[in-house]
Amino acid sequence: MASFDANEHQHNRYNPLKDEWVLVSPHRMKRPWSGQVEKPPIENIPRHDPKNPLCPGNTRPNGKVNPNYESTFTFDNDFPALLQEGPAPGPSDHPLFKASPANGTCQVVCFHPWSDITLPLMSIKEIRTVIDKWAELMVDLGKKYTWVQIFENRGAIMGCSNPHPHCQVWASSFLPNEPRVKDRTQREYYTKHGTPMLVEYAKMEVQKKDRIVLANADWLCVVPYWAVWPYETLVLPLRHILRLQDLTDDEKNSLADIMKRLLTKYDNMFQVSFPYSMGWHGAPTGEHYNEDQSHWQLHAMYYPPLLRSATVKKFMVGYEMLATSQRDLTAEQAAEKLRNLPDVHYKQAET
Amino acid sequence: MASFDANEHQHNRYNPLKDEWVLVSPHRMKRPWSGQVEKPPIENIPRHDPKNPLCPGNTRPNGKVNPNYESTFTFDNDFPALLQEGPAPGPSDHPLFKASPANGTCQVVCFHPWSDITLPLMSIKEIRTVIDKWAELMVDLGKKYTWVQIFENRGAIMGCSNPHPHCQVWASSFLPNEPRVKDRTQREYYTKHGTPMLVEYAKMEVQKKDRIVLANADWLCVVPYWAVWPYETLVLPLRHILRLQDLTDDEKNSLADIMKRLLTKYDNMFQVSFPYSMGWHGAPTGEHYNEDQSHWQLHAMYYPPLLRSATVKKFMVGYEMLATSQRDLTAEQAAEKLRNLPDVHYKQAET
Ligand SMILES: O=P(O)(O)O[C@H]1O[C@H](CO)[C@@H](O)[C@H](O)[C@H]1O
Ligand SMILES: O=P(O)(O)O[C@H]1O[C@H](CO)[C@@H](O)[C@H](O)[C@H]1O
Repeated sequence: MASFDANEHQHNRYNPLKDEWVLVSPHRMKRPWSGQVEKPPIENIPRHDPKNPLCPGNTRPNGKVNPNYESTFTFDNDFPALLQEGPAPGPSDHPLFKASPANGTCQVVCFHPWSDITLPLMSIKEIRTVIDKWAELMVDLGKKYTWVQIFENRGAIMGCSNPHPHCQVWASSFLPNEPRVKDRTQREYYTKHGTPMLVEYAKMEVQKKDRIVLANADWLCVVPYWAVWPYETLVLPLRHILRLQDLTDDEKNSLADIMKRLLTKYDNMFQVSFPYSMGWHGAPTGEHYNEDQSHWQLHAMYYPPLLRSATVKKFMVGYEMLATSQRDLTAEQAAEKLRNLPDVHYKQAET
Repeated sequence: MASFDANEHQHNRYNPLKDEWVLVSPHRMKRPWSGQVEKPPIENIPRHDPKNPLCPGNTRPNGKVNPNYESTFTFDNDFPALLQEGPAPGPSDHPLFKASPANGTCQVVCFHPWSDITLPLMSIKEIRTVIDKWAELMVDLGKKYTWVQIFENRGAIMGCSNPHPHCQVWASSFLPNEPRVKDRTQREYYTKHGTPMLVEYAKMEVQKKDRIVLANADWLCVVPYWAVWPYETLVLPLRHILRLQDLTDDEKNSLADIMKRLLTKYDNMFQVSFPYSMGWHGAPTGEHYNEDQSHWQLHAMYYPPLLRSATVKKFMVGYEMLATSQRDLTAEQAAEKLRNLPDVHYKQAET
């Protein structure tokens, strides 16, 4: 029998952060696709749409008027999933019917006054103002809340209902599932090995090289060994950093650089505005500020759904929902493809 | 402050099977939707398409010719994610880069010779032949494999690339993530309480009544207390049953009845062929036949993505991927809506 080649032969890979496995079936890349194709992203977005509640100067559904903002603009989500107060459920009378209180706040951060721009097309300086706003919100909301989730859904295919460049921040009185699991796994790793898991992981990836997409003085961007989405990436600081608000001035600038280059590569892949959900995880806040959180390492995740083209995505359905996530392309193949894509955006390239 | 009302006030609910929480925000139902709308399912499917590799008598991509089958028809998936053999990865040299062997087989089960029929439009007798085939495959593949995952992706929106009524069976040499977690949670519950978790759960739901969608002599269908998808349902036997192949003749008939009525209600919701992913979980097979698996209870899950209409689905994106699943409609509201829908399919109703 041939010897094992990860780019050819099926295997499972372990995700130590989520304590889960992913099934990798590289031989399946040959499968034809006759299923659903998505609409490509809309390309002709007006710079200012008088009906778009996210544009400067416009009136939102609740009657409030946006300022004529020129940089970022943050406001309370008009339809928040989390309210600051409300009656809490009582104690549960049975272990199979357990409810717990949920309080929080949901905010929206517009990245730029224009609707027809996206992060990769913004300047490093403009991206930096977004990072500053994120850090500021982490501090402000982190005072009161246990978890502050910054996330961006980009593209209609990712449930984004407004093309204006923006992200969301949902802060909650509870630790959500994903960070709860990551808190456990990182704590266990730290106790056992004496190093934070993701600090060690970045060090190893720098040595191994084959999953690196981008790097600079402070940051590393890889397709993680255990990636589930075809072109999933993980952005890690090279230094041990607990939270976004702990970044130095230089690290914020170099993060803007990594973000601009990564998102440019994504857009260049299929020459469309590449859809994704992304977000930040770092040490919990609120009451957790008083605890030792050295097991945590700050990181951003990008989860883009596209697989073969601008209109064919990876469906995470039956087997993935009920059993285990499955991928065709290996993490190394995806990293190589991303690495080889130009750093200059196709819309800004000289022709 | 008003007293807590689960249908009005935000809260978290615990899923004891998956050891996860779901955020319930019923006040968010008022949110308007201006995001992506899906294409409605294709309604004019030809009964026999000479180019469809799933139809009787046709030639598949690998050159094999389908028999002129008149009931169900099972064959090996032409593009399997799991192959029966192949070189296995060696031992891992670092805890953050762990791979493990994955072997298995992927089969496709056509439910019926016609492409223009779906399970809810099939007769109880025809649905029964599908259940018999499932039980038979569980026995055959369960001899060799640790886990046999039966699942159906219905509708293009759920990644189903062929409209011909069919499901898939992926059997593997390993226990996938979802059953691995459920094995742990059910075992812990059984050790602590002396009853299988889902046997107790069904008993409680029969008493509480407010999440019941359907019931008959042998089966219960509920929107589980911890449902994540808007109209998610859980189908449970009333008796303690480890695996699909342990169902009696009567229980197979009454399951066909529950399936027909549930899927009819789903289709009647928006008067379209309702998309979903569904599948079965029961005690593991292969080497696990020799172990006490009393903590397991057989169950089927239906995960339909639609939320507001035939074309507006619930997006499980940013917050859901990175933090916790979030739902607007409560499980009780969804159950009531399903309960009140007719049992007669809109395509078969007298007018
Ligand atoms: O084998 P199919 O139906 O073509 O493929 C579909 O179901 C599989 C199992 O859930 C998924 O891995 C694929 O992404 C999906 O498109
Ligand atoms: O608030 P939005 O952007 O309208 O809503 C979007 O993101 C939310 C958070 O991931 C999801 O719960 C919604 O399903 C999705 O449509």
